[in-house]
Amino acid sequence: METLDRSYFESLDQVDPLAEFREQFDLPAGHIYLNGNSLGVLPKAAKEKAREVVEEQWGQGLIRSWNTYDWIHIPRRVGDKIAGLIGAEPGEVIVADSTSVNLFKLAAAAVKLNAGRSKILSEPGNFPTDLYILQGLESFMDGKVRLVTESRDCIMDAIDEETAVVVLTHVHYKSGAMFDMAAITARAHEKGALIIWDLSHSTGAVPVALNQVGADFAVGCGYKYLNGGPGAPGFLFAAKRHLAHLEQPLSGWFGHANPFAMRDDYEPAQGIERTLCGTTSVVGASLLEVGIDIMAAADMNLIREKSLRMGQLFMELIELRCGQFGFGIVSSKDPAVRGSQVSLTHEQGFAIMQALIARNIIGDFRAPNILRFGFTPLYVRYVDLWDCVDALVDIMTHDLWNKAEFKKLTAVT
Amino acid sequence: METLDRSYFESLDQVDPLAEFREQFDLPAGHIYLNGNSLGVLPKAAKEKAREVVEEQWGQGLIRSWNTYDWIHIPRRVGDKIAGLIGAEPGEVIVADSTSVNLFKLAAAAVKLNAGRSKILSEPGNFPTDLYILQGLESFMDGKVRLVTESRDCIMDAIDEETAVVVLTHVHYKSGAMFDMAAITARAHEKGALIIWDLSHSTGAVPVALNQVGADFAVGCGYKYLNGGPGAPGFLFAAKRHLAHLEQPLSGWFGHANPFAMRDDYEPAQGIERTLCGTTSVVGASLLEVGIDIMAAADMNLIREKSLRMGQLFMELIELRCGQFGFGIVSSKDPAVRGSQVSLTHEQGFAIMQALIARNIIGDFRAPNILRFGFTPLYVRYVDLWDCVDALVDIMTHDLWNKAEFKKLTAVT
Repeated sequence: METLDRSYFESLDQVDPLAEFREQFDLPAGHIYLNGNSLGVLPKAAKEKAREVVEEQWGQGLIRSWNTYDWIHIPRRVGDKIAGLIGAEPGEVIVADSTSVNLFKLAAAAVKLNAGRSKILSEPGNFPTDLYILQGLESFMDGKVRLVTESRDCIMDAIDEETAVVVLTHVHYKSGAMFDMAAITARAHEKGALIIWDLSHSTGAVPVALNQVGADFAVGCGYKYLNGGPGAPGFLFAAKRHLAHLEQPLSGWFGHANPFAMRDDYEPAQGIERTLCGTTSVVGASLLEVGIDIMAAADMNLIREKSLRMGQLFMELIELRCGQFGFGIVSSKDPAVRGSQVSLTHEQGFAIMQALIARNIIGDFRAPNILRFGFTPLYVRYVDLWDCVDALVDIMTHDLWNKAEFKKLTAVT
Repeated sequence: METLDRSYFESLDQVDPLAEFREQFDLPAGHIYLNGNSLGVLPKAAKEKAREVVEEQWGQGLIRSWNTYDWIHIPRRVGDKIAGLIGAEPGEVIVADSTSVNLFKLAAAAVKLNAGRSKILSEPGNFPTDLYILQGLESFMDGKVRLVTESRDCIMDAIDEETAVVVLTHVHYKSGAMFDMAAITARAHEKGALIIWDLSHSTGAVPVALNQVGADFAVGCGYKYLNGGPGAPGFLFAAKRHLAHLEQPLSGWFGHANPFAMRDDYEPAQGIERTLCGTTSVVGASLLEVGIDIMAAADMNLIREKSLRMGQLFMELIELRCGQFGFGIVSSKDPAVRGSQVSLTHEQGFAIMQALIARNIIGDFRAPNILRFGFTPLYVRYVDLWDCVDALVDIMTHDLWNKAEFKKLTAVT
């Protein structure tokens, strides 16, 4: 076995087939950024794109840009590019609104498609907005559907003939645990249920094959692994077989068959456009497109391979060098059930993460005791992992026992 | 009476107290832009703001910017600034999502607040997305509420004890006709109904005094008179007296009392934040803030005075110089019922507008025969009106009878 030292990690970078992608990102000098699972990094090309969209398209083109720059088709154009990242067809994905709003549309549509069934199934500890949106739908439908949550180990058995729709996040935001999308989708269909996958922590991070597994619906986030910028629009996927029957309540004018006919009666567009509501952020979707274009140029299998290797090496380093400091490793060592992050536990987790951030090594903390480290193979190097753990050792050896320093860091949220 | 010639219009500009605002906008050279009611003009400061938000806040600050640049409070901070433009209090307005999505939230909330009443009242020919969203709500609530539309002349009488909520657009997008907000709001309350005002064509264009008239709810658009940029986030207003009871179905994590506690159960925020859903576009809301800051520095009474005078002069010029060309004037000459635009009709309307646009005089066309001219006093000069009508006379005198030229223009949508 190789010696795990800094030069080993450097040697991995030297043969990394994805190494050249790092140049396309504008990482702040001297930073190690392990939080792309929360907010992705600025692509260099997005700077020029922002200038172009604001100064030329908006400033000079004004209203004409709806045609000349094809603003009108941005949701579909960028959606089609995302389709290629998640195993979907063009015409099955649209970029619009937020992940939360998109989930509401699809959950409401799924309940309507499966009318007569009363159960929406999810897991406790799912990403909060997913549960909150489903609770909103439940309350809004006055008891016609109810949200039931079952722990992930029991989720397969909890899918039954009462289940209208299963709503699960493919890769868990906190633990990084990954569901078997094929098995659960098959189970849902076996029981006559529909399924919505939240791909917020999957798209651009792990291979996703929505049509291969026969998924019905999905939503996802633009500002994490897709590097779309803060508050970038989200996206949604609806399998082609559902489009003709899909009715969603947020039936705004951009979802109309002919928005600019300005008629009084809603008539849904034929295709995925029927899931649109109001005007999509042109600036937001244009910046998102830059991130997606970079992602689309990379080989997802190479991304996955590097990301898993990084996760494995990170855990090995933690065990090797931080064994005595009381960290727990939440994430599985089995690559089949691990996304693109590794989560640790430590009772001093918040303060430890603050100490790392003070050294420009950026992961994040999730209450009560989780330290999250996200691996984004397009701009994180192997050597960054070494340096991160090296800093962690230093912090645990020196800073941790300096209570005053820790108290100060804890105070700076 | 003054002679209506070009020098008269120039003389009005010379004494215009709002003239200096034009310098703050980046109008394309040689353009007359009379379409700010559809997409506002780029403020010069928005160019630097886009650079700062993208390159510094996102690029350099990364995830830390949620705190250091206070991204977390953008929806409320920008909302508070809008409050000042529409006669609301801080804490009654939030910036988020699109106008359409916001209308869905409030219409659903209003129906719930007024449970037992079955009617949602609007007018035929209201801005399409308003009707479509209400139809979506109707269909989604399975007959518990029904959308009824009554023509604007009969709207007062149509408000009855069955009416849960009245949804009207204050200034009509097509005609520019303006409702008497105080009278209709009072009538709604007299009958126990709630009211939602769509302020898309009002905010930044005409004085609005939501609390003075006792309005319950409102929505509005960021990319028209507020100059927020294409697809800028919308906003919503909820009167303080309703906040504690307001339940809206799009209960995403940003509407939670404590979003980052990441709990499983939704608990709405105490204040207006409970109307938030997912992550707001940071770039979009930051650009919108630039437009609002300019608007907030202007005196709304001066804006209204200039806008009405422009409308009046424009109609006078049309009558004086275009009388023989077959134009109809849709907009009222009564300033009490006219917003900030003048709409004309002409059977060749589409081609005429194309001919104007070809000369960089930009209004817009709405089927079947409406030419819209929007007056945005912060960057449109009186002399622009003269030059616009002058071009119109030229087009009608020469181009109109050149059928080949017109055919060409008609083909270029």
